Amino acid sequence: MKTLIVHAHPEPASLNSALKDLAVTTLETAGHEVRVSDLYAMNWKPAVDAADYGSAASTPLRVARDSGRAFETGALTPDVRAEQDKLLWADTIIFQFPLWWYSMPAILKGWVDRVFTYRFAYGVGEHSDTKYGERYGEGTLAGRRALLSVTIGGPESSYGPRGINGPIDDLLFPIQHGILYYPGIQVLPPFVVYGANRLTSDAYADAAKAWEQRLLTLESTDPIPFRPQNFGDYELPSLQLKPGLEPAGRTGFGLHVRG
Amino acid sequence: MKTLIVHAHPEPASLNSALKDLAVTTLETAGHEVRVSDLYAMNWKPAVDAADYGSAASTPLRVARDSGRAFETGALTPDVRAEQDKLLWADTIIFQFPLWWYSMPAILKGWVDRVFTYRFAYGVGEHSDTKYGERYGEGTLAGRRALLSVTIGGPESSYGPRGINGPIDDLLFPIQHGILYYPGIQVLPPFVVYGANRLTSDAYADAAKAWEQRLLTLESTDPIPFRPQNFGDYELPSLQLKPGLEPAGRTGFGLHVRG
Repeated sequence: MKTLIVHAHPEPASLNSALKDLAVTTLETAGHEVRVSDLYAMNWKPAVDAADYGSAASTPLRVARDSGRAFETGALTPDVRAEQDKLLWADTIIFQFPLWWYSMPAILKGWVDRVFTYRFAYGVGEHSDTKYGERYGEGTLAGRRALLSVTIGGPESSYGPRGINGPIDDLLFPIQHGILYYPGIQVLPPFVVYGANRLTSDAYADAAKAWEQRLLTLESTDPIPFRPQNFGDYELPSLQLKPGLEPAGRTGFGLHVRG
Repeated sequence: MKTLIVHAHPEPASLNSALKDLAVTTLETAGHEVRVSDLYAMNWKPAVDAADYGSAASTPLRVARDSGRAFETGALTPDVRAEQDKLLWADTIIFQFPLWWYSMPAILKGWVDRVFTYRFAYGVGEHSDTKYGERYGEGTLAGRRALLSVTIGGPESSYGPRGINGPIDDLLFPIQHGILYYPGIQVLPPFVVYGANRLTSDAYADAAKAWEQRLLTLESTDPIPFRPQNFGDYELPSLQLKPGLEPAGRTGFGLHVRG
């Protein structure tokens, strides 16, 4: 495998950094190639602005259109182009981050906002009577697989089907489906460490062992069976799921998972 | 009303900035006090790091604990303290932003990550057999109301109950419930403008009229009836919703809305 690890924690002596380091050594020892984008170490710029698009920035700025023009004319900044190149090089992408306020840290959201430009991650492919662009299962990053490795301060019960925070699969859906599956990436089930703020050394040892196991079985792990957009499950052009495809009683985000 | 508008768009001549400006004039004309945090204009720092916590930053950095110590000892940076003061001043908070990759722009997520510190927005209140801290309906920001004003590039049908992107209420749940309701804020139904990348001037006029109407009726608008944590709906300490409280067939995030 060629694995890109996108890492988002400010402290090199943190649980997140330990899991990132363990991923590097485990994968390299198993003979895989690994590259790391350590966003804090890189002093990654999080906020999208006109400077991102160089000569392709219009007045007034139009983020979607201008980002696409910058992508197509090579006007994107070198830091963004380097990340796009890493994504194209990789066949596997691991995101290592703490769940802060039920989503990614701002620095990682800013990696998505700046790297996933128009014409690269969205606005790709033709629109016709049978196809609404290439997205959700197709797109620039098709053929790649990704996995979220997430640490969570709270206990697992709060993230279960009836837990007060909401089910973890639903909390991660905007990332797994909306960000990763959208440009064509297949998404493996997440690796989640709960109780991360009070992890004992025994609990860390267990988590590390489970993480190694996940890393060494990535190639044989089935992705989440999100429904592809252009293969008959959705009405066009409304992009609503056709009636009757889901198991009885399923609603919400779960509609977009097959089986 | 005392309204804080937190605004997150890089372009002053954008739809988002027009909606922000309209909110300021509409509310001020109606006799309300308004303050604006224009995050791009303020050059808001998005990424949490040790510099945020001054003398309260430990080695190694522990984000939750150190942010609480910094809050309690007055060691937070002036930009963060100013935003906390604005939140305490306000009775109404409006967030104006474009939905980028199914969530907030990084600069706004960074406002949350940095301003919503431990002991201010979480880690508040006592834990006992009948109470698991003050959160979800209680907390530092109780008594306040908030509203998301969101622009979305895609069409409304893609965000409906069976739409491919997922229902808009579910996409906004991690923000509305996880970020805003958590520290005690009541959340009003969002104001959403779809098709924002191709808005005609007629469609803008309609959106502006609808937005003014929402702004002038904020005080009489009922909040989303999220379930409070400590008033009998949840088992303690597991924080799972008690059986049978929800309408038949409801699952997922919807469990945490009454009625």
